[in-house]
Amino acid sequence: MERIGYDYATFVEDLKTLADRMEADFDAIVAVARGGMTMAHMLGEYWDIREVFVINSVGYEGTEKLASPTVFNVPQLAGFRRVLVVDDIADSGETLDAVTKVLQKSFPDTAFATATLFYKPEKSIVEPDYWLKRADAWIDFFWSDDLKRVIGH
Amino acid sequence: MERIGYDYATFVEDLKTLADRMEADFDAIVAVARGGMTMAHMLGEYWDIREVFVINSVGYEGTEKLASPTVFNVPQLAGFRRVLVVDDIADSGETLDAVTKVLQKSFPDTAFATATLFYKPEKSIVEPDYWLKRADAWIDFFWSDDLKRVIGH
Repeated sequence: MERIGYDYATFVEDLKTLADRMEADFDAIVAVARGGMTMAHMLGEYWDIREVFVINSVGYEGTEKLASPTVFNVPQLAGFRRVLVVDDIADSGETLDAVTKVLQKSFPDTAFATATLFYKPEKSIVEPDYWLKRADAWIDFFWSDDLKRVIGH
Repeated sequence: MERIGYDYATFVEDLKTLADRMEADFDAIVAVARGGMTMAHMLGEYWDIREVFVINSVGYEGTEKLASPTVFNVPQLAGFRRVLVVDDIADSGETLDAVTKVLQKSFPDTAFATATLFYKPEKSIVEPDYWLKRADAWIDFFWSDDLKRVIGH
């Protein structure tokens, strides 16, 4: 599969573009770990939202793929009206689908919107409410690669 | 107070240096939100640790400073032996102190180590186990500023 490098400078431009397309009246942000964490951190700062949370999931037990990802560390969202769930990419979409289902079930009075930088329309089982770029290749994100590139001291 | 800009390129160099000083036999990473989230994301990728979690705290109720920060969204850490808690800076140190106390009490069998990029020795009530740079000024982190700098499209 083709691989595309995704550097920090491009990310900042893209996240700004994505952020400005949203209505930005969210009262909390939930990052899907790990992929959405840097996005959520920066969006929280950009919108001055201190209520930034993270949710975890696992798709595998050992080497065996689970029928659907197990979601855990569900944050306390009672009382929040409108929450944005962010992840880097909707690839199979299974994680985003599982996470939003668990959140909606846990907090039926909260409205959840989803946002990703990348979306694979031919593969993902869900379309995020907001997404910026269609992905056909494998994305090498800077957060996965940049520390490995630094020459040791 | 003097202000120092802290850009992404410097951060990558610093985080690599800090990471390589640690023994890196952690089986999980906990970020203090929001400040530690980008660090934890990248350390998780660097060390290939998928178990990256986040913990929240608030130091104020309205405009009133609490005697000690309230810690919430404590992640499930049962069974983890050695966990790294990361935050951007130990300024007053009150957040890091409150978070590690809650974690240690909740998971008495787990060993917690703390790491920050910056530390204010004359002000912080705790010294992180690992820290890289002494801070005397106010730090303007890239994750707070970079999205605001992008010219709109």
